[in-house]
Amino acid sequence: MPQAVIPPAVILVRPQLGVNIGTAARAMLNCGLDELRLVAPREGWPNAHAWPAASGAVAVLEKARVFATLPEATADLTRLYATTWRGRGLVKWILTPEQAAQDIRALAAAGGRGGILFGPERTGLENEDLAGVDAVVSVPLNPAFPSLNLAQAVLLVGYAWWMAGNETPALRLEHGLSPLAGRAALDNFIARLVQHLDETGFFHPPEKRLHMLRNLEACFGRLQPTEQELRTLFGAIKALRYGPYRPPGKDEAEEAER
Amino acid sequence: MPQAVIPPAVILVRPQLGVNIGTAARAMLNCGLDELRLVAPREGWPNAHAWPAASGAVAVLEKARVFATLPEATADLTRLYATTWRGRGLVKWILTPEQAAQDIRALAAAGGRGGILFGPERTGLENEDLAGVDAVVSVPLNPAFPSLNLAQAVLLVGYAWWMAGNETPALRLEHGLSPLAGRAALDNFIARLVQHLDETGFFHPPEKRLHMLRNLEACFGRLQPTEQELRTLFGAIKALRYGPYRPPGKDEAEEAER
Repeated sequence: MPQAVIPPAVILVRPQLGVNIGTAARAMLNCGLDELRLVAPREGWPNAHAWPAASGAVAVLEKARVFATLPEATADLTRLYATTWRGRGLVKWILTPEQAAQDIRALAAAGGRGGILFGPERTGLENEDLAGVDAVVSVPLNPAFPSLNLAQAVLLVGYAWWMAGNETPALRLEHGLSPLAGRAALDNFIARLVQHLDETGFFHPPEKRLHMLRNLEACFGRLQPTEQELRTLFGAIKALRYGPYRPPGKDEAEEAER
Repeated sequence: MPQAVIPPAVILVRPQLGVNIGTAARAMLNCGLDELRLVAPREGWPNAHAWPAASGAVAVLEKARVFATLPEATADLTRLYATTWRGRGLVKWILTPEQAAQDIRALAAAGGRGGILFGPERTGLENEDLAGVDAVVSVPLNPAFPSLNLAQAVLLVGYAWWMAGNETPALRLEHGLSPLAGRAALDNFIARLVQHLDETGFFHPPEKRLHMLRNLEACFGRLQPTEQELRTLFGAIKALRYGPYRPPGKDEAEEAER
């Protein structure tokens, strides 16, 4: 699913550990983000610890660019979003990741480009970093336990951006090798089941038959079986009624259980 | 923000490493999930590696319960969601995390309780685990790079559940010690600015005055400043017009810059 819009840049400001740069790159690529910018990484760059931690997201690491200062890293961007909130006395719009995602996509559609800032692992962004940003992205997690590590913060913000452009159908039924049974096949199964049950005297007393029948119809009616599952059910019913399956000849029960 | 509804249980099926149980517990608590169930953890339980990895989510670990089998772990639950999709030939509803979150909350509102299954780190859930679940939760990430580690999978699914009950206002302006300026104060500022600019002959040629004025109004009109910021701006304008600020007496400019 290639994204039509240009994704935002991810800017790690003074990241401390190479391993965290690697896990952040992995989280980025999970969400279709591939432009990583590093501002004054503490351990320098490239960093050997980043590669194994990226679990295969090496393209992101290989393209990563290093800058000495935040203004240099963001010079070509249109709007900046900061992902921590330690600023005191600064006035900023606060967005959820979902709101920021909408904003970033609207900006991109208008020809602009967003950049998302993540601070150092231990301390987060400083007021000096925050003063110039356009908005703060705040993840409204459990207020009693809101702390995320760097890769998790990247993942949640990136996920919101990715999902804002995601068009997964609302509800899908995944099936295997067998096609889903058509409604006629299901209705036929239910009718045969009812016939067997009628023959065994299941519907008793008679005045309750309709209610019992409706329950069975409702139960199997929402089953949405495959053709294979339906054959299995046919076989199961025959086995229940007639006992274990009879060796001579390839009869219908054997076919049903294959 | 205490959740009114009972959160789903998180069930780690045959987790391999204690450290991953710890990071999963952290991700759970970030999202207000606190009931952890472990099915046959490979390294046994309790596991000393889990605690440091949980970064403070010790309450989740201390309450965690261990079960020998999946059916024992889920006996009291109403609906089961599996978070990997390696099953071949099984028919299951596939939900995004957001759809699952709605489903879990609707279930809870009706008195039921959901359980979310996560498989072993390396292999994910087996067909044997998947056969009985009600639905599969699939995170529709970058199809070219969809792999998540255990804690990240817990975080994304948990986050969707948490956000489905989250009522963060759509857009908030965070401010510091100073209250936001009223509209009258802002209008007054713009009027004074225009007066200064008129006096300096800024609006030239005269036929462009209105257009220039509208631009200034639009620019400052969306600023939403605090009272303190407005005082700073007043002072800046005076300094620009009259030069550096004059020592004798606490005049208006000094007040403005404080």
